[in-house]
Amino acid sequence: MKIAIYGYGNLGRGVEAAVKYNDDVELVGIFTRRNPSTVKTVSGVRVYHADELKSFKNGIDVLIICGGSATDLPEMTPTLARNFNVVDSFDTHAKIPEHFNAVNEAARQAGTLALISSGWDPGLFSIARLYSSAVLPCGSDYTFWGRGISQGHSDAIRRIDGVVDARQYTVPVEEALASVRNGEAPELTTRQKHKRECFVVAADGADKARIEAEIKNMPNYFADYDTTVSFISMEELRSQHSGMPHGGSVIRSGKTGFSAENTHTVEFSLKLDSNPEFTGSVLLACARAINRKSKRGESGCITVFDIAPADLSPLSPEQLRAHLL
Amino acid sequence: MKIAIYGYGNLGRGVEAAVKYNDDVELVGIFTRRNPSTVKTVSGVRVYHADELKSFKNGIDVLIICGGSATDLPEMTPTLARNFNVVDSFDTHAKIPEHFNAVNEAARQAGTLALISSGWDPGLFSIARLYSSAVLPCGSDYTFWGRGISQGHSDAIRRIDGVVDARQYTVPVEEALASVRNGEAPELTTRQKHKRECFVVAADGADKARIEAEIKNMPNYFADYDTTVSFISMEELRSQHSGMPHGGSVIRSGKTGFSAENTHTVEFSLKLDSNPEFTGSVLLACARAINRKSKRGESGCITVFDIAPADLSPLSPEQLRAHLL
Repeated sequence: MKIAIYGYGNLGRGVEAAVKYNDDVELVGIFTRRNPSTVKTVSGVRVYHADELKSFKNGIDVLIICGGSATDLPEMTPTLARNFNVVDSFDTHAKIPEHFNAVNEAARQAGTLALISSGWDPGLFSIARLYSSAVLPCGSDYTFWGRGISQGHSDAIRRIDGVVDARQYTVPVEEALASVRNGEAPELTTRQKHKRECFVVAADGADKARIEAEIKNMPNYFADYDTTVSFISMEELRSQHSGMPHGGSVIRSGKTGFSAENTHTVEFSLKLDSNPEFTGSVLLACARAINRKSKRGESGCITVFDIAPADLSPLSPEQLRAHLL
Repeated sequence: MKIAIYGYGNLGRGVEAAVKYNDDVELVGIFTRRNPSTVKTVSGVRVYHADELKSFKNGIDVLIICGGSATDLPEMTPTLARNFNVVDSFDTHAKIPEHFNAVNEAARQAGTLALISSGWDPGLFSIARLYSSAVLPCGSDYTFWGRGISQGHSDAIRRIDGVVDARQYTVPVEEALASVRNGEAPELTTRQKHKRECFVVAADGADKARIEAEIKNMPNYFADYDTTVSFISMEELRSQHSGMPHGGSVIRSGKTGFSAENTHTVEFSLKLDSNPEFTGSVLLACARAINRKSKRGESGCITVFDIAPADLSPLSPEQLRAHLL
């Protein structure tokens, strides 16, 4: 399978790193909107300008689009689906139906196959929500994120006057997790589910009390959460908070029995050292499925819900039945 | 969707109980090889003799076969697949390829669709193994079972001279679980992964020391495990050990990165009050998928690996994308 990566940030590098663990995958190149001579890849794979993509129309089985959900993907994915099978990680949950329709129209017209909103949430977490709710129709779903770095919240802190740099960790509240795992099916407010830990490097002479107050009162991002703010040095930020860990849990607690007398808890959880590398690994497995489904004649837009698990694996159906079933 | 249940033991009752939580499912009846007048159903649904099944050929969309894997299913599933779409829970892992071939031949010839080896292991646990190994090709898989009742091990104890009744719990070793969850990828022996707790009611005057020794030294079942044996009264067995709880965890720990420098842990776990009711709920969701795939013209034998998650859910693709993705 020949793949290419479109966009070379953290996620693009995550896909690039995943290629070495998948013997059936060949990375044709990296495509960027920047000047290719300014981009050096970790693996040494060649970098092309995005404009050169057209000449690869028959040399790429699946194009993995590694752009941002806010402005890149709503434009890129429908456009690129006109010429390629594509996979993206669009993660603005509320806008998924709209994105789906735009990509579906482009892919159907072109006869290509597009997978949107892959990764781990949306992605593996969505799959866990679907399986557990199909099996336990009478129940409650919970998604906890973290402990992990939220890029959006870190950026929001960095925009505050007097802040040089910052990292924000989203942290599930242990008591809430324990109650859910215990099958108590609690009703939880935003504050009861997650807390936010902020590590901030302030400019020399900046008013730390004001910065802390601005963070804690920021609507949407922090005001609805119990938030802690720690001021640290740039050295500490670099040595202790340079990674991109993340993870979380999808838990469904549900009832069965003629009198709903039995409780069951289904949990899917992730603990990730590197969010972009794990996400890139998911996108690559999904690209394998897209390639197979496209070769079977499928076109249009699909999601992870439409992919049979067997299509993600390099193993044959016989091997899967003998060793993984 | 019209379903019927073939075989009315614990699992058959589990499927029967699951029907009330699935509005799109109608239970046509229960089919048994016993005298139907001796079988009383919990829900009041009608019981038929297995021989009457032929006359329902056009009135049942999917037949859920609730027989045992040792002798029932290898015979029943291929035979019943000649006239019906079927779902079974065949769980003798080593014999799955053989069972698959027999069922596949029968179903292909008849134009029916058959799903074998559904439930939670094989079933949801198999799916978890597949997703996590496809996403993290460089890694190690671990499956822990319990804490839960093992019917096979309980039966083995009951066959010992002087034993009136017994329950055996399979229990994962906490230290092993912790090490795996911590990404240490340990090599674990059988003894290091699980221990076995036995609760035994001995006959009056039976030699308890001999019974305990016979249990602990029983090859395959107990000799390779750390086993504890507690002698209790029949009253205590009935009041404290009458349930059928089970569960467990599938954990994959894997590496990513250009130098395999990052570790990720993916875990899928179940905590079940009632093993047969949960298994029955999985079979029912799978029956929905089989019905849909059969109506699309598919035939032959498949496994849970071949079912796209969306086919398990009563929700429409639009609802799934809007609410679960």
